[in-house]
Amino acid sequence: MIMATILVFIMHIGFAALEAGLTRQKNTINILYKNSIIPSIGILTYAFIGYNIMHAEDLKGLLRIGVYFPDGNDGFDTIDDQYTNYTHFIFQAMFAATSATIVSGGVAERIKLRPFLLFSTFYIGLCFPIVARWKWGGGFMDNWEVPFYDFAGSTLLHSAGGWAALIGAIVVGPRLGKFTNGKIKAFPGHNIPLATLGVFLLWFGWFGFNGGSLGSAEPGQLSRIFVTTGVAAAAASVGAHFTSYYQFKTFDVTMVLNGILAGLVAITAGADVMNIWQAGLIGFVAGVMVIFGVIFMDKIKVDDPVGVVPVHLLSGIWGTLAVGLIGEKAGLGQLLSQGLGILIVGGFCVGFSLIFFLAIKKVFGLRVPESVEKEGLDIHEHSMHAYPYFGRKE
Amino acid sequence: MIMATILVFIMHIGFAALEAGLTRQKNTINILYKNSIIPSIGILTYAFIGYNIMHAEDLKGLLRIGVYFPDGNDGFDTIDDQYTNYTHFIFQAMFAATSATIVSGGVAERIKLRPFLLFSTFYIGLCFPIVARWKWGGGFMDNWEVPFYDFAGSTLLHSAGGWAALIGAIVVGPRLGKFTNGKIKAFPGHNIPLATLGVFLLWFGWFGFNGGSLGSAEPGQLSRIFVTTGVAAAAASVGAHFTSYYQFKTFDVTMVLNGILAGLVAITAGADVMNIWQAGLIGFVAGVMVIFGVIFMDKIKVDDPVGVVPVHLLSGIWGTLAVGLIGEKAGLGQLLSQGLGILIVGGFCVGFSLIFFLAIKKVFGLRVPESVEKEGLDIHEHSMHAYPYFGRKE
Amino acid sequence: MIMATILVFIMHIGFAALEAGLTRQKNTINILYKNSIIPSIGILTYAFIGYNIMHAEDLKGLLRIGVYFPDGNDGFDTIDDQYTNYTHFIFQAMFAATSATIVSGGVAERIKLRPFLLFSTFYIGLCFPIVARWKWGGGFMDNWEVPFYDFAGSTLLHSAGGWAALIGAIVVGPRLGKFTNGKIKAFPGHNIPLATLGVFLLWFGWFGFNGGSLGSAEPGQLSRIFVTTGVAAAAASVGAHFTSYYQFKTFDVTMVLNGILAGLVAITAGADVMNIWQAGLIGFVAGVMVIFGVIFMDKIKVDDPVGVVPVHLLSGIWGTLAVGLIGEKAGLGQLLSQGLGILIVGGFCVGFSLIFFLAIKKVFGLRVPESVEKEGLDIHEHSMHAYPYFGRKE
Repeated sequence: MIMATILVFIMHIGFAALEAGLTRQKNTINILYKNSIIPSIGILTYAFIGYNIMHAEDLKGLLRIGVYFPDGNDGFDTIDDQYTNYTHFIFQAMFAATSATIVSGGVAERIKLRPFLLFSTFYIGLCFPIVARWKWGGGFMDNWEVPFYDFAGSTLLHSAGGWAALIGAIVVGPRLGKFTNGKIKAFPGHNIPLATLGVFLLWFGWFGFNGGSLGSAEPGQLSRIFVTTGVAAAAASVGAHFTSYYQFKTFDVTMVLNGILAGLVAITAGADVMNIWQAGLIGFVAGVMVIFGVIFMDKIKVDDPVGVVPVHLLSGIWGTLAVGLIGEKAGLGQLLSQGLGILIVGGFCVGFSLIFFLAIKKVFGLRVPESVEKEGLDIHEHSMHAYPYFGRKE
Repeated sequence: MIMATILVFIMHIGFAALEAGLTRQKNTINILYKNSIIPSIGILTYAFIGYNIMHAEDLKGLLRIGVYFPDGNDGFDTIDDQYTNYTHFIFQAMFAATSATIVSGGVAERIKLRPFLLFSTFYIGLCFPIVARWKWGGGFMDNWEVPFYDFAGSTLLHSAGGWAALIGAIVVGPRLGKFTNGKIKAFPGHNIPLATLGVFLLWFGWFGFNGGSLGSAEPGQLSRIFVTTGVAAAAASVGAHFTSYYQFKTFDVTMVLNGILAGLVAITAGADVMNIWQAGLIGFVAGVMVIFGVIFMDKIKVDDPVGVVPVHLLSGIWGTLAVGLIGEKAGLGQLLSQGLGILIVGGFCVGFSLIFFLAIKKVFGLRVPESVEKEGLDIHEHSMHAYPYFGRKE
Repeated sequence: MIMATILVFIMHIGFAALEAGLTRQKNTINILYKNSIIPSIGILTYAFIGYNIMHAEDLKGLLRIGVYFPDGNDGFDTIDDQYTNYTHFIFQAMFAATSATIVSGGVAERIKLRPFLLFSTFYIGLCFPIVARWKWGGGFMDNWEVPFYDFAGSTLLHSAGGWAALIGAIVVGPRLGKFTNGKIKAFPGHNIPLATLGVFLLWFGWFGFNGGSLGSAEPGQLSRIFVTTGVAAAAASVGAHFTSYYQFKTFDVTMVLNGILAGLVAITAGADVMNIWQAGLIGFVAGVMVIFGVIFMDKIKVDDPVGVVPVHLLSGIWGTLAVGLIGEKAGLGQLLSQGLGILIVGGFCVGFSLIFFLAIKKVFGLRVPESVEKEGLDIHEHSMHAYPYFGRKE
């Protein structure tokens, strides 16, 4: 469990590298800044209010400021003889922080720093713990006749973050020059090795993410989760490889990388209830779908610089539904529960994001001025360049 | 064991970073593409046929498609009360995938993408499991009077991959301009920090690779393996430091990096039967030898862009022989077994690689056209650049 | 414990990436070279003499060459039924090697390679084990009425290295052009994504560093250490975020990165005796202080390229004193012990560094010639460039 916490931590490195690598050079510092501060906001916000919102047993607990363990136990007490409250807290805090990182990619390269950090604080502190409480805190979705099933967060984390990213991308609008005169301009990522490193670190961290969500070290289930996680990602990358070649007639490495992530997101809901072939199927479909998702986003003219919506929202939904379609839990009742859960969580996150993004836009403004966007956020918001000497005689 | 699996996974990041960093900028995407898809091919191929080839108990099992655990057990059953079948499968699948990654470096910068992926599929699916079966699947080399000894694959993985890389490099031929009019042109790697990061991630992953090969968490042996692995790499880097300065009169960091890897490859055969000083000696010799190996490759005019042959083949042979020369297993009988094992595995891999590389060359062609090689594989096979903005006004 | 060793190993990757990223492009290879060879020197030196100096029970043991386990036990024997001697050795060797890496940043971009490696060898082999022996080897500081407390090395490792870096920076002098005509010139780091990656890898490794220092897997304490380590770093980055904006009116990502490291250094002394809020306070103060530390260094005209002194020395002192001020150990007696320990260790390290840096300067020279410094150490000492193709038509 503690190892899993460390591995989830590494996902923050992965997200930072991926998002920075897939965007333009002139905004690199801005992205690194956001991704450096979000884990910190996540840990602190979760300590102040998030943990209590997710786990409090009554209203008094809910309104308490500062992490409070159930029944007044302290952090050293263990839960079900498995792990201590402290471990439970730090694992979930790391986990919660990733939710805002997902949103970050959808609004990259044109959102102002401070308004985004403000949104992130609300999102990590309120939206994620409320949604997570409904299922993982023993809330109503866990008490349906056929409970909603989401092993490690295809819906509660990924599609939730995907909805927020989608709303954010719409509210803040596309980057300058992205959609002009009916033409779509591609802005290639500035450092593809960095993005590739990021995806591999995410895959690496995902083993901990899914493994740690088991909440025990029961070797049979744990090893199964590793197999399903690995096989789904592998099948997804192969699916993306063929689909993207078929669509674009070239071997676009960013599509394979998105495929890997889509496979990981999709298997997350049912990593513990699939066998090796079912995991492969879920991953493969996710890898195919992500390509069409990327194409679709361009068609509806929503500018999502790093593909958050296809990867986290679309694959998150697919993976959640897949639990009702195949594997040990499959069945019509489960499928309906899954669909209902997706709708409820989606509706809440859309509403939450819309209210908070619009309110922040009204009060502080969301978007940098045109001149800043053109010259780059790095030099205007951060007074520095990511690579000041490249291509320059020192 | 599960931790070890994750650490072996990180070796794929390491190989990707190392190979990309040590080659030219215009082929970076191509290398990242190969290294992103190979782990996936590895996991899937091993699931379909590799695992069965390595472990099947009869012909029927051998021809079965789809991973099949011994005696019809399922993935949750444990082997010798140590780890589950699932764990065994995913660890070995990660392991198998590294074999093709080794080959990749030897043919980099001029091989076509799809023919290479085809070769990799055959290599991971057939060559590696057949060779591994002979020893780790309880095959004939494990049943000699003095069994062949290869703790974690100096021969079965590294020198095997090194042979395939050597054959590949010869069949595909040197890069344009490498050897002209009796002169040797050095093509410096395009991103040395990336390559350095790669080697350190490999060293990091190697602890899991060697540790996991123990197949148990017996603390005494496990800690010894960590000591021998660490000390061998350290001694090798010092050996390479002095030797390369002596040879080239400059401190070439890529030579130190190759030294570290050579030390790791060499200790892999006997990590569990050496003491701290023996490990240091094996590593030091490997670090010295790798420099002469690099020089020798230029002399015989075989173009091996990232030094696969000196690092994996030469050091793999040295480390395997060293088990017969020093340490707990040393003895004439062991030395003969080691030598015989090296010859058999080498002969098989050379034959296999020759047949498959030549067949693929005949059917599909192996090498990109001259114009593509000159302008770079990235723009021709992948329609993108690794760093589209560097040195350019945005 | 073994996992912790691997995580400490990853700190070497982190230090290499951080130091390379924060310095100028023309010296990148030099920094990578130093950071590649230092872990090796560390492991070997510690095997030859360091371990014995730290743990020997009499003079004979002290003078023995080659690691020698207490009572003539071998490496497989366990200490207090917790971990084997081998594990103890390799964890501490990894740990010791980081001490020289800390020094490296303070003298970067103008020190000669070989004199620096010589200093590192002495520092790892003599200075660190002597100081560590005083407390962790059961020495006099551990036997005071109120023993000096330093859980994982805020003083014994970080402030010790910080003192050596300070002395080194003074002896070798500032980089050319840093302080001219009363003006201070900033030399921006050449690759900020690399530096960011480095800090996150350090944070990641720090969990192992602090976790492993517990020397057992007692879940309660171990999970507390993870919480305090995570929360301190998070609070520190927020502290640095606000303070640096207040001071510089811009969002400087390198200041947030320094803040994270300062928080980690500060919590290291008392990670096991603080609660979650105390850890947050210690981190926050460290994050604020580090900004003023950076400003102060410029004021006293000491050129410390990557901020070693504010991060390791200043925060190390603060974290060590904090154990006497807050948390389970707080009290006047403890505070006095902490202060006395800081003075003794500081005095010894200052003296040691002064003697060795001056002696090496006298005998071999410390600083590269002016022309080498201007054109870059990479091309002069290493005959290569870190990124030979960037901004160049291939």
